[in-house]
Amino acid sequence: MDIKALFDITYGLYVVSTRYGEIINGQIANTVFQVTAEPINVAVSINKQNYTHELIEKSGRFGVSILAQDTPMELIGLFGFNCGRNVNKFAKVKYKNAAGGTPVLTEYCIDYLECDLRQKFDVGTHTIFVGELLDADVLKKDKPLTYAYYHEVKKGTAPKTAPTYRGINAEISEVKEEQQTASKYRCPICGYIYDPEVGDVNHNIMPGTRFEDLPSDWCCPICTAAKSLFIKV
Amino acid sequence: MDIKALFDITYGLYVVSTRYGEIINGQIANTVFQVTAEPINVAVSINKQNYTHELIEKSGRFGVSILAQDTPMELIGLFGFNCGRNVNKFAKVKYKNAAGGTPVLTEYCIDYLECDLRQKFDVGTHTIFVGELLDADVLKKDKPLTYAYYHEVKKGTAPKTAPTYRGINAEISEVKEEQQTASKYRCPICGYIYDPEVGDVNHNIMPGTRFEDLPSDWCCPICTAAKSLFIKV
Repeated sequence: MDIKALFDITYGLYVVSTRYGEIINGQIANTVFQVTAEPINVAVSINKQNYTHELIEKSGRFGVSILAQDTPMELIGLFGFNCGRNVNKFAKVKYKNAAGGTPVLTEYCIDYLECDLRQKFDVGTHTIFVGELLDADVLKKDKPLTYAYYHEVKKGTAPKTAPTYRGINAEISEVKEEQQTASKYRCPICGYIYDPEVGDVNHNIMPGTRFEDLPSDWCCPICTAAKSLFIKV
Repeated sequence: MDIKALFDITYGLYVVSTRYGEIINGQIANTVFQVTAEPINVAVSINKQNYTHELIEKSGRFGVSILAQDTPMELIGLFGFNCGRNVNKFAKVKYKNAAGGTPVLTEYCIDYLECDLRQKFDVGTHTIFVGELLDADVLKKDKPLTYAYYHEVKKGTAPKTAPTYRGINAEISEVKEEQQTASKYRCPICGYIYDPEVGDVNHNIMPGTRFEDLPSDWCCPICTAAKSLFIKV
């Protein structure tokens, strides 16, 4: 059995969000899919440990922001590798409230959906929430960000709570398979790889900068982990 | 509310199959997704009207063949627009039995999965089947066929039983939005569009052949509907 077969299942990348009274929160999810056409029902699979899971159970409503291909890694890091119990994620992005009050992104978001929770199914570590479409809109014509693009082009990884988490060994072996012309370093928190050939131009680190030469206060551009935690791969 | 927002959800295209004693059958599905990592569980959403639905309920096992981007429309038509009650679909393709006996494609298939049914969830017109991974293999390195590629490049459509069925009006309006330099004709059964600029080279119809000039015994290359049923779009 070769479980790498699972890696060719196609997914998008989304921010799944909710509002419970004054509390708003969201997280990255890749398992969003329409399950019926009449009425229109949309399903999402969310890890039970996640704060968004707790809030959707309380609110009975969820939103889906369909991310654009040009979504910066910082936004994915903000929503995917931080916990809403500690960080007000929506304070750092542009958003609006959909018809039912659920926050949805208005930047790096090509469409949004808002659903009223109709059913929830326990599948072990995760719950599949199924909701009927309440509101939806197209914000711009652009390509959606796919999970394949995120992995292959953006070199992103999945957190341990993702349904498609590949295990640290699988992720590291993938990196080792790549041709290495200089030492790359991996963030042990979120899996981000610092590649000296690429640098970190959003933080004024030019391509060609060795990891060892990064300033000591440089931190992971995705999850803000300290430079000292990084592991050579 | 603009339900075109749903069209940017990302999916792949798969043949979901099963074996019940001597009976083997499969169908096209786009809603296949991993829902948990420990243990590995995979979910598929299948219309209750479909023969594959009846057989999975009886067999308690299902397979997923992840289709390659170069999968011919004929194969999609065979599995997507025919009913296994009338046609032995696997008689027309290359396949093998996975470890648990489920038939999986060995051509135009980049990976396969085989799952033991663990749970099933009623979502109205469809059932979400959740199965634990029993067997999986990678057959070749190639790009998976995505639903977006099928729609945009191959000009494919969804049958009425698909969870993502867009309605005949939505599909036709999409076609009307395209620049038309010659009369195209649409198959009312499966949605295939005969485009005179493209012809039907697999059946010796050269590009440039007007629909009106096709032989009277020409039929839909996807679902074999008669020429006389086609509608000008």
